[in-house]
Amino acid sequence: MAGVTSPSMSVYILENVTHGNKSYSNLNEGYGKVLRYGAYSQEVLDRLRWMEEVMAPVLAKALEASGGIDIRALLAEALHMGDEGHNRNKAGSLLFLKQLSPHVARVASADVAEEVLRFLGDNALSVLNPVMAACKAMADAAHGVEGSTIVTAMARNGTDFGIRVSGLGRDWYTAPAQVPDGLYFAGFSAADANADIGDSTITETAGIGGFAMAAAPAIVTFVSGSPKDAIDATMEMYEITETDHLHFTIPALDFRGTPTGIDIRKVVELGITPRINTGIAHRAAGVGQVGAGLVRPPMDVFETALIAFADRYGI
Amino acid sequence: MAGVTSPSMSVYILENVTHGNKSYSNLNEGYGKVLRYGAYSQEVLDRLRWMEEVMAPVLAKALEASGGIDIRALLAEALHMGDEGHNRNKAGSLLFLKQLSPHVARVASADVAEEVLRFLGDNALSVLNPVMAACKAMADAAHGVEGSTIVTAMARNGTDFGIRVSGLGRDWYTAPAQVPDGLYFAGFSAADANADIGDSTITETAGIGGFAMAAAPAIVTFVSGSPKDAIDATMEMYEITETDHLHFTIPALDFRGTPTGIDIRKVVELGITPRINTGIAHRAAGVGQVGAGLVRPPMDVFETALIAFADRYGI
Repeated sequence: MAGVTSPSMSVYILENVTHGNKSYSNLNEGYGKVLRYGAYSQEVLDRLRWMEEVMAPVLAKALEASGGIDIRALLAEALHMGDEGHNRNKAGSLLFLKQLSPHVARVASADVAEEVLRFLGDNALSVLNPVMAACKAMADAAHGVEGSTIVTAMARNGTDFGIRVSGLGRDWYTAPAQVPDGLYFAGFSAADANADIGDSTITETAGIGGFAMAAAPAIVTFVSGSPKDAIDATMEMYEITETDHLHFTIPALDFRGTPTGIDIRKVVELGITPRINTGIAHRAAGVGQVGAGLVRPPMDVFETALIAFADRYGI
Repeated sequence: MAGVTSPSMSVYILENVTHGNKSYSNLNEGYGKVLRYGAYSQEVLDRLRWMEEVMAPVLAKALEASGGIDIRALLAEALHMGDEGHNRNKAGSLLFLKQLSPHVARVASADVAEEVLRFLGDNALSVLNPVMAACKAMADAAHGVEGSTIVTAMARNGTDFGIRVSGLGRDWYTAPAQVPDGLYFAGFSAADANADIGDSTITETAGIGGFAMAAAPAIVTFVSGSPKDAIDATMEMYEITETDHLHFTIPALDFRGTPTGIDIRKVVELGITPRINTGIAHRAAGVGQVGAGLVRPPMDVFETALIAFADRYGI
């Protein structure tokens, strides 16, 4: 139809180089009034158009010139720089900027390079989206292992919280999502909060985010709690996980690997649900992100999955 | 004389905006074979020439366009990102890059911008020199207070270690410098080490570096020790300092300010000398930096200063 353009959306492509599987993410818009939290004002749409039309082609060329960025290595370094990789990606985003900036300067005009470098640098979440996709590529490689009780995905849609389990095929186990407990941006309160939403919990599934809180004591100013709570959060997650991560380590815990691989048997046996760092969306469409905090999945999803596991494997 | 050029050396200019005093530093060359540790091979000289002829003019324009960078604010943020500001400036150097990169892209040609952004980004010490000068600007403002026993400078020249005290005018109190205890780069050992050298101890004088070790648990892989030692180092320095820093805080210690303002009375009374993170220079001219570690000033300098204080003030 004349005058109607077909909008496109560029994505990052992440590849698990060991297992060959791929994953994808869009580009991060920043905090506050952003489409991914439900805002869609002219300002939001204008930013998205600039990201697509101006920034994305530059990033594509810069990433190609860079030969690709090792997000696992970047995350490992960021965890030594006070990030937990989900709600705090200050260091990771700067490491991302550092790797991209020489190429951006090379492939873009001075005006555009200036704009892109400012946008990437000022957005402390710039690397969050490729990080989430990298976690997805890691977690997907663990899916489909016969007899495995390890969780390979957790996600919420604002209504339900769902998990997938490695040894249980394509089924999702769901229950109503809860409202996060956290800190609100100025002018907002818990009364504004929607139930938990988004697929960013792939970070905790992969052993970072809430599971790596001990690496990020400064994050408590954003998600609530004390630095001691941050240590406790990670220690608690060792109780319900299969292993310590080989690559993601926590200096404050003598470089112990982050707790990785949620085991539904341990969750149900101990009554400890995963600890998730999350953003909080306004309950009304159009407003956007209004805070950040903590949430835990409903225990039901683990119980239901464990019963399904027992049924399937005849235990 | 024909054919002889007069080499120039650009410097950062730091201004203490509260007190009006200024300080200066050269540009950081990186690790290893660098002039400031005594190396002067062709590679070292070529790098210095590139820094002076290509990078410095770009940085001058970029800094002017930026309106100046608030190094105290940058340091405060870096301490929440695993830096201690002396031997670990990974986060601070990236924050520096973040602020400069849009301007560099604007003021330089694509080729030069690419080179400069790569050099700044790949050098995890890029911000160290302006940080040291900023610490100097802060410490100088504390100098010359009648009756004050606070240390306002510590420095070493490879032979002696000297301190200056606020209430004791322009005198330096010196004693033979010690050899740092630390970790060596591949191929080097303690037998190669020169006695402690450099004026970077202005960082500890201003309340960061070894005094802020608790902010930087990952640094122990570079200077030796365990993350617990890093906490202990900071806790020990509270014993010999006057106050907790208002701006430099440590997340892992519930955001307590870093121990700041070494009091020569406390040092002598408790027998605790300041804890300093430092690089280690090879004892032979021309080699450069061979490691990094810890050093403490000789107790003599504090005792001598305290006797001078008693003499001067008739105590």
